Amino acid sequence: MDTITKAKKAAGEKAAALVQPGMLVGLGTGSTAYWAIEKIGQMVKEGLNIRAVATSVASEQQAKALGIPITSFSEIQQLDIDIDGADEVSEDLQIIKGGGGALLREKIVAHASRRKVIVADERKYVKTLGKFPLPVEIIPFGWELVFKSIQALQGSPTLRTREDQPYITDNGNYILDCKFGAIENPEQLHHHLKAMTGVVETGLFINLKPTVIIAYENGEVKTI
Amino acid sequence: MDTITKAKKAAGEKAAALVQPGMLVGLGTGSTAYWAIEKIGQMVKEGLNIRAVATSVASEQQAKALGIPITSFSEIQQLDIDIDGADEVSEDLQIIKGGGGALLREKIVAHASRRKVIVADERKYVKTLGKFPLPVEIIPFGWELVFKSIQALQGSPTLRTREDQPYITDNGNYILDCKFGAIENPEQLHHHLKAMTGVVETGLFINLKPTVIIAYENGEVKTI
Repeated sequence: MDTITKAKKAAGEKAAALVQPGMLVGLGTGSTAYWAIEKIGQMVKEGLNIRAVATSVASEQQAKALGIPITSFSEIQQLDIDIDGADEVSEDLQIIKGGGGALLREKIVAHASRRKVIVADERKYVKTLGKFPLPVEIIPFGWELVFKSIQALQGSPTLRTREDQPYITDNGNYILDCKFGAIENPEQLHHHLKAMTGVVETGLFINLKPTVIIAYENGEVKTI
Repeated sequence: MDTITKAKKAAGEKAAALVQPGMLVGLGTGSTAYWAIEKIGQMVKEGLNIRAVATSVASEQQAKALGIPITSFSEIQQLDIDIDGADEVSEDLQIIKGGGGALLREKIVAHASRRKVIVADERKYVKTLGKFPLPVEIIPFGWELVFKSIQALQGSPTLRTREDQPYITDNGNYILDCKFGAIENPEQLHHHLKAMTGVVETGLFINLKPTVIIAYENGEVKTI
């Protein structure tokens, strides 16, 4: 295991340790959340009694394979804790997510959780958001119009593809990866984009007030 | 043909007469837009050269059956005219749409059109919006949370169903029909709802500056 994978595993496991018996838990998506789910699966095997909502088809499959009981918002209204990764976390704890394509479900789950825990390795922890291209989930019909609107905002969008076809989210939508450069006002940018007809959600997670767990390649794990 | 159907036909045909050779035309959805499409189909048979974008699978099928050439936003960037119906038009020309389930595509097409023409029969023309329940298109995942948020806004939402299953839009989403009562500030309500995570679009068509064609049961047709 390389040092970055070790760091991701350490962050994921530290977050999993915050899960208490009886909790309703949001399970994130991505390479760090993966390790949190693995650890929670192990805790469930050892007798921990929880129920979870997954933020993606992939995480739900992982959780089911580990024997973690899965529930949904038809049965529950609120979660106790949500553990998820990030593509960038700024020093003032604003977040970019969506590199893994699950930003919408991740945001729904985060908003439904009393406590939000973000796990990331040190490379994701930045002064200002924007080096990572901002994912924006959009409706396929007329996507070219949103593309042009974001170009006009200097967002340099790229339609995300997989095997030369548009990448399709779990909700049947497309994703534009948008290079805005340094994002000085994430809240304003989020509202501007979200207001566009055809935009379903943005990867800017604003004012979540998360607990952030950063793992360093030297083995350190810091909670912020 | 009853008097309301006659009125719808008259409004649709009056709108169709605004279509000029060479135009790029948006084709709406619903029982009044239907008559506009029928008339445009007849004009195409008589030699009118246009291309059209349809706002729903149903309208696209109707147009194709009539021989109207269909294009898409991968080929064009702007339309010359969009002809669509409405569920309510207020005296200050704010609009509720979405009773037919096509609000998102309708809004994308309307925003992409230089001229917007709304056709409606007199029953749809009201002082203040809100007697017609406001359709809001939402993501199926976690829809119960949006439902509760709209309840908290006094919106009395109902999940639209068809044959006891949730109604699915052309974009794979659900619709909540929301009774807000008289909507005094449609712009504010639209922005509030659209900002919610899980809300894709609302049926409030704000500040479109449309040409509105109202047909009366007595046979009169007024352009506003």
